[in-house]
Amino acid sequence: MEFLIAKDELIRALSRVQGIVEKRSTNPIIANVLLEVSEEGMRVAATDTEVSFVGRYKAECARPGALTLGARQLYEIARLVPTDAVSFNLPEGSGQMEIRSGKAFFKVLGLSADEFPPVPDPNAEAPAISLSSRELKSLIDKTLFAISSDDTRTGLNGAHVEAFNDGAETRIRFVATDGHRLSLCGRSFEGTIDWPGSLLLPKKGLSELRKLVEDGDGVWRVSFTENQAVFCRDAIAFSMRLLEGDFPDYNQVIPSSWQRRLELRRDDLVSALRRVSILAAEKSHPVRFAIEGGVVVVTARQPEAGEAREELDAEVEGADLEVGFNARYFRDALMALDTETVLIEIGDSLSPCLLRPGGGSESDELYVIMPMRLE
Amino acid sequence: MEFLIAKDELIRALSRVQGIVEKRSTNPIIANVLLEVSEEGMRVAATDTEVSFVGRYKAECARPGALTLGARQLYEIARLVPTDAVSFNLPEGSGQMEIRSGKAFFKVLGLSADEFPPVPDPNAEAPAISLSSRELKSLIDKTLFAISSDDTRTGLNGAHVEAFNDGAETRIRFVATDGHRLSLCGRSFEGTIDWPGSLLLPKKGLSELRKLVEDGDGVWRVSFTENQAVFCRDAIAFSMRLLEGDFPDYNQVIPSSWQRRLELRRDDLVSALRRVSILAAEKSHPVRFAIEGGVVVVTARQPEAGEAREELDAEVEGADLEVGFNARYFRDALMALDTETVLIEIGDSLSPCLLRPGGGSESDELYVIMPMRLE
Repeated sequence: MEFLIAKDELIRALSRVQGIVEKRSTNPIIANVLLEVSEEGMRVAATDTEVSFVGRYKAECARPGALTLGARQLYEIARLVPTDAVSFNLPEGSGQMEIRSGKAFFKVLGLSADEFPPVPDPNAEAPAISLSSRELKSLIDKTLFAISSDDTRTGLNGAHVEAFNDGAETRIRFVATDGHRLSLCGRSFEGTIDWPGSLLLPKKGLSELRKLVEDGDGVWRVSFTENQAVFCRDAIAFSMRLLEGDFPDYNQVIPSSWQRRLELRRDDLVSALRRVSILAAEKSHPVRFAIEGGVVVVTARQPEAGEAREELDAEVEGADLEVGFNARYFRDALMALDTETVLIEIGDSLSPCLLRPGGGSESDELYVIMPMRLE
Repeated sequence: MEFLIAKDELIRALSRVQGIVEKRSTNPIIANVLLEVSEEGMRVAATDTEVSFVGRYKAECARPGALTLGARQLYEIARLVPTDAVSFNLPEGSGQMEIRSGKAFFKVLGLSADEFPPVPDPNAEAPAISLSSRELKSLIDKTLFAISSDDTRTGLNGAHVEAFNDGAETRIRFVATDGHRLSLCGRSFEGTIDWPGSLLLPKKGLSELRKLVEDGDGVWRVSFTENQAVFCRDAIAFSMRLLEGDFPDYNQVIPSSWQRRLELRRDDLVSALRRVSILAAEKSHPVRFAIEGGVVVVTARQPEAGEAREELDAEVEGADLEVGFNARYFRDALMALDTETVLIEIGDSLSPCLLRPGGGSESDELYVIMPMRLE
């Protein structure tokens, strides 16, 4: 195995996999990245066995071959080498890759490519739906934060994905909840597939996918196998193992009616919540929302620290009310929205609150936040 | 107590003290900042009882008074208030400061100013020496990193400060060591004081002082009392309690002769060490320096990972040699230097190595690094 690669191309390939490889496993090979070189260039693969990445990069192959090397160490080398081109040489029968760049020389012990777990390659033939980078990013951004971080909460530790037909078009929908709040976002897509019944995408997989999606425009081909979701763009394939467990019947949680409705500037509410939260208890950030004669007032109070209060201009429909919320859940939802105003629908002080894009937006996007009991 | 202050001025005052206040103390008042308002403006004081800060800031006083408030909370409020001016009001007989900015309102519980520990004020009368911000920063930068972080190492957990006359002028000298390496830097100064015998300045004090020093030009007046060092500039006074303990006789550690001398480009050596260290053991970063027929070769090796090697161009005097060093100590010293080349003097493989500015510099600055035994 012998090849020459541009420093930039090597960095690009290795930076992709840093979040995927797993350093603390009993299986040391999954801390490694697989390098496979042929006349077509370099194939790079990484996996933690739940989430996998494969990419193809330009390289000048002198002698084909494959080896796995420590992903973090190789990335450090790539970033620090002094020349624009880096040469790799694995002498026949050796397990040590020789890396040369100018006067710098490294000899790095690898593990056999044969022992590397299988990872799905891009497959242009498989039936897939198409989503733009922008739409895929949007689906992730608007739901990722609401996924439960508690791995023991089966069914809540991933984003639920489904397809549905709203009469006019087929849409894909991401839904996430941690039991205290819920996020839902839909987008139209092109292509048809046999849609599997229930799909639950893991948090780590979505976080890593988000980094790839953020990295340039393009169209992603999304396909599903029995236990994998595969996302391909150009020469990149990213896959994640579907989670087991049943996502709750989320439609039950979405309020179907309201007694109070507010529309107010999203930025104003975010800023006010940030300020008022300084005086809220650190753990659950309890903040009181009051509708007082057509004005919205947010307050927080800690007996041992003090209190904060702020009034906000809003268009208000419905009677006065006081209700408590976790300010962080509110801010997360407000930050995920991208409209100038937010529409807030509330029943009474014990019912969940619904946030939607304001300004008459018809976007298929909503956030539900459960209320908190305040003393 | 009632006053109006510009948001920027308030942020400036409070950002200064964030590193000084101590949140994890049994005495809650030292997590607070003292605000004292009079016709002259606002005096802000903070202390952890070892390190203290006092500064004077512009404020429009409506009614004089004093109160202490949580430093971190007040800083958060200052950064997030929506208007350019912030009003403070402590109603007579109340312990709760009312803070108003636009529609935002805070009521923050304080602790009495009477219970705040005394902190030294700027005293323009006290005999002091004068050092420019640039010189003071230089003295700190070139020695701070070599101070031991181990609080139990009495005598080594601070920078030793002394004055001496080199025949032409009186100079101030900072020296620091952690037992493995030593840094020394001298600068000329103006003014005369009764110089105390031995002075040991604590690491936290120097780190905080560095932030103040970095923040703009100016001349610092430095004075010493029996147990305090006080640094004043304009309306700021920063003081630190001197450490107890005897600094070792550092002159014994500085090599007075050499058998090999190298001069090489500082950047080249820093980069080569960074690269080679990727393959050095994580804890002590052992790297081998070899002089081989007029060439310098740095290598690192870990049996389970691999090895790295790099040659460097150098002007070499003396015979071939192999010697081991902690690469991090070497890099710290090289980063503290500011000349294009570095002069390295070595005896044999068991003697300490001396680093000095290259290019014929006559700077009063040197670094000593103890060798490591390599297998």
